[in-house]
Amino acid sequence: MQTVHVELGVRSYPIYIGEKLFANSQLLRAHTRAQQVLIVTNETVAPLYLQQIRECFAGLSVSQVVLPDGEAYKTLAVLSTIYDQLLQEKHNRTTTLVALGGGVVGDMTGFAAASYQRGVDFIQIPTTLLSQVDSSVGGKTGVNHPLGKNMIGAFYQPKCVLADTGTLETLPKRELSAGIAEVIKYGLIVDGSFFNWLDDNVEKLLANEREATSYAIQRSCENKAMVVAQDERESGVRAILNLGHTFGHAIETAQGYGNWLHGEAVAVGMLMAVRMSQMMGHLTQSDYERVCQLIHRAGLPVDSPKNMTGEQFINLMGVDKKVIDGKLRLVLLERIGQAVVSTDFDTESLHQVLNEYCSAA
Amino acid sequence: MQTVHVELGVRSYPIYIGEKLFANSQLLRAHTRAQQVLIVTNETVAPLYLQQIRECFAGLSVSQVVLPDGEAYKTLAVLSTIYDQLLQEKHNRTTTLVALGGGVVGDMTGFAAASYQRGVDFIQIPTTLLSQVDSSVGGKTGVNHPLGKNMIGAFYQPKCVLADTGTLETLPKRELSAGIAEVIKYGLIVDGSFFNWLDDNVEKLLANEREATSYAIQRSCENKAMVVAQDERESGVRAILNLGHTFGHAIETAQGYGNWLHGEAVAVGMLMAVRMSQMMGHLTQSDYERVCQLIHRAGLPVDSPKNMTGEQFINLMGVDKKVIDGKLRLVLLERIGQAVVSTDFDTESLHQVLNEYCSAA
Repeated sequence: MQTVHVELGVRSYPIYIGEKLFANSQLLRAHTRAQQVLIVTNETVAPLYLQQIRECFAGLSVSQVVLPDGEAYKTLAVLSTIYDQLLQEKHNRTTTLVALGGGVVGDMTGFAAASYQRGVDFIQIPTTLLSQVDSSVGGKTGVNHPLGKNMIGAFYQPKCVLADTGTLETLPKRELSAGIAEVIKYGLIVDGSFFNWLDDNVEKLLANEREATSYAIQRSCENKAMVVAQDERESGVRAILNLGHTFGHAIETAQGYGNWLHGEAVAVGMLMAVRMSQMMGHLTQSDYERVCQLIHRAGLPVDSPKNMTGEQFINLMGVDKKVIDGKLRLVLLERIGQAVVSTDFDTESLHQVLNEYCSAA
Repeated sequence: MQTVHVELGVRSYPIYIGEKLFANSQLLRAHTRAQQVLIVTNETVAPLYLQQIRECFAGLSVSQVVLPDGEAYKTLAVLSTIYDQLLQEKHNRTTTLVALGGGVVGDMTGFAAASYQRGVDFIQIPTTLLSQVDSSVGGKTGVNHPLGKNMIGAFYQPKCVLADTGTLETLPKRELSAGIAEVIKYGLIVDGSFFNWLDDNVEKLLANEREATSYAIQRSCENKAMVVAQDERESGVRAILNLGHTFGHAIETAQGYGNWLHGEAVAVGMLMAVRMSQMMGHLTQSDYERVCQLIHRAGLPVDSPKNMTGEQFINLMGVDKKVIDGKLRLVLLERIGQAVVSTDFDTESLHQVLNEYCSAA
C-alpha cells in the first residue's frame, strides 16, 4: 500500500492506494468518529462492493443510499434524497458519509457532507480510475445545474481517500480510458517526465497492468496533492488542474450530461488547449501531434462533437467558473509539463481552434 | 454610526449599526469586488428599500431576485431560483450577493453565496430586529428541510453587515417582539447586566425609541461577536447561542414553518430551559418569574402551542443539530448571565418541564 498525504493544515488527510484495501477495515474505522455511517453509492457499484464496505463498519449503525448511475443524476433533486435519508434516520453531527463510487457519487456525497447540518465528516472510496486520480482528491464537491456543470458546491475535504486498485478490474474499458485522460493531464501541466513515462506505458494502463496502474495513480495523486496544497480554494495556481476543462465542460453541457464521459470531453478539451498553445507559439507542431497520438492511443476521442458550432462553445464557455469579471481565463501550456492560466491569450488563436475543431467534425 | 468587529482572522468583518446608513453608498461599495451584484430580497421588503439599495451600487451591473416572504419559503426549491438567476445572468466568481431582508433572506442568500461556484462574496443588510441582532451575524447560513429546521447549510461569513435602524420603523410590532426575544437571550446567556438593563428598558424597545434600540443592537452584536470569535463552527461554547432553540425548533417544526415566528418559539423555548434550570436548582423561583415577566412584557408568548404533547417535543428534539451521538444536549443556565451546554442534565426535570408546558396549554 502507498500513502500520499494532502497537506492542508487541520484539513490534511491521507490517500491510501493499493490492492485489497477493502479487506482492511482498520483503515476506514480509524477515520470514523462515531456510531453512525451512511454509505452513498449507485446501482452499478452497489452489487459489486457495497457488502464488503458495510462489513468494514461492522458494529456501527450502517445504512446506505443507492443512487441511479450517471452524470445526469448529479442534480439538486437527487442530492435532496441523501438529505431525506440522513434526516429520516436522525443522523447527527458526528455521522460519517462514505462515498462509494465514481466522481458523481464522490462529488454529491462530499457536498451532502459539506452541507448537512453545516458540515459532517466524509470518506472517499473511489471505484473508477478517474475518481481515484482526480475527483476524490482536493475537496471539490458539488452538483450540476442545467445551465452549467458543478455550479453548486463547496470546497470540503474528506477525512481520507481509499483507492483500491482492485475495483478497476470491473471498470468498463471506456471508463478506464476516461480516467487516463486526467492522468495525461498531470503530465501535461506539471510533470513532463511523467508524460514521457505515459508515452511509453499507456498500453499497460489500458490493459490494467497492476504495477503500472498503481504507479500512475500514485504519481497523479502526488501531483494533484502538491497543487492543491498550494492553493486549496483555487484563487491562483490550482486553476491549472482545469486544463481542457473549459472546452470540455462546454462539450458536456451541449451534449447533455452523461452522453460524453467527463474524461472524454476533457481529452478533446486538452487537445484544443494544446493546439491553441501551439498556435500561440509555445509548443511545436510535433508536440501537438505527440499529445494527439497519446490521447488517441488511450482510446479517447480527438474530435469535438459533430453537432457543435464555435459560437456554441463561446457561449457555453462564458459561464464557466474560470471566467473572472467577464474575461475568459484559459489554461494553456508553456511547454509539455508546464501550464499557465491566461486571460491575455490571443483571441484570434481561440477562434481559429474553434473553427478547426468545429469544421473538422 | 457604531461599528462592531467580528474577529475571525482572514474572515473578519465589520457590523455597521446606525440610522440612514442606506444613504452612505461608500459603505457598501467598499465591500464589493467587481462589477456584478445580485440583490436577494422578498416581496415585503422590496417596495420599501430595494430602490435605495440599487442606487448604492449605481454604475455596477445590478439585478435582483424577489422571493416570496416567510419561513415557509426557506427551502431548497426556492434557493434553486437564486442559482437559476445567477446562471442566467452569467454571474462569475467575483460577483457579490446582497441579502436585503430578515433572517430567511439572509440565511438563504448566505447559503447561495457559500455554494454558488463553491463560494462567492456576500453582504448582509438585515431589515428586522431579529436579523440585526442575531441571524445576520456569525455566518450560519442554510435552508430548512421538511424534517428539520436549518438542516442544510454552511458556515459562511459575509463581507460586512449593514444594520440600518431606520428599517425598524416599518417593522410590524409582532416581528419587533420576536427580535427582542433574541436580545433577551444575550442577557440570559452571557450578560447579566444587559439583562438588568432590558428589565428596565424593554418598553423603550417596544416603542422603537431610537437610542435604546441602537444600544440594544450594538450590545447584542458585541455579545454574539465575542462568542462566535471563540468558536466559529460551533464545536463548543457557541452552542450557548442556542438557548431555547432546541425546544423552539420543535415548536416551529410541529406548527409548520412560519406560523409561529422564530423569535416567538425561542421565547417559549428559553422559558422552558430556564424553568428546567430552576428545577435543577441553578436558579430561584423568582429568577424564573422575572424572565417570564420580561418575555411577557416584550409582547411574546409564554405558553407552548396548545396542540403539542411532550412526546412530540421529545421526538422533534431528537433530530436537532445539538444532538451528539444520540445524546440530547441542552443549553441551560447556571445563573442569569451564564449559560452552559449540558448532556448530563436531569432527565426527570426535562419530562417535568414538558408535562408542565404541555398540560398548561
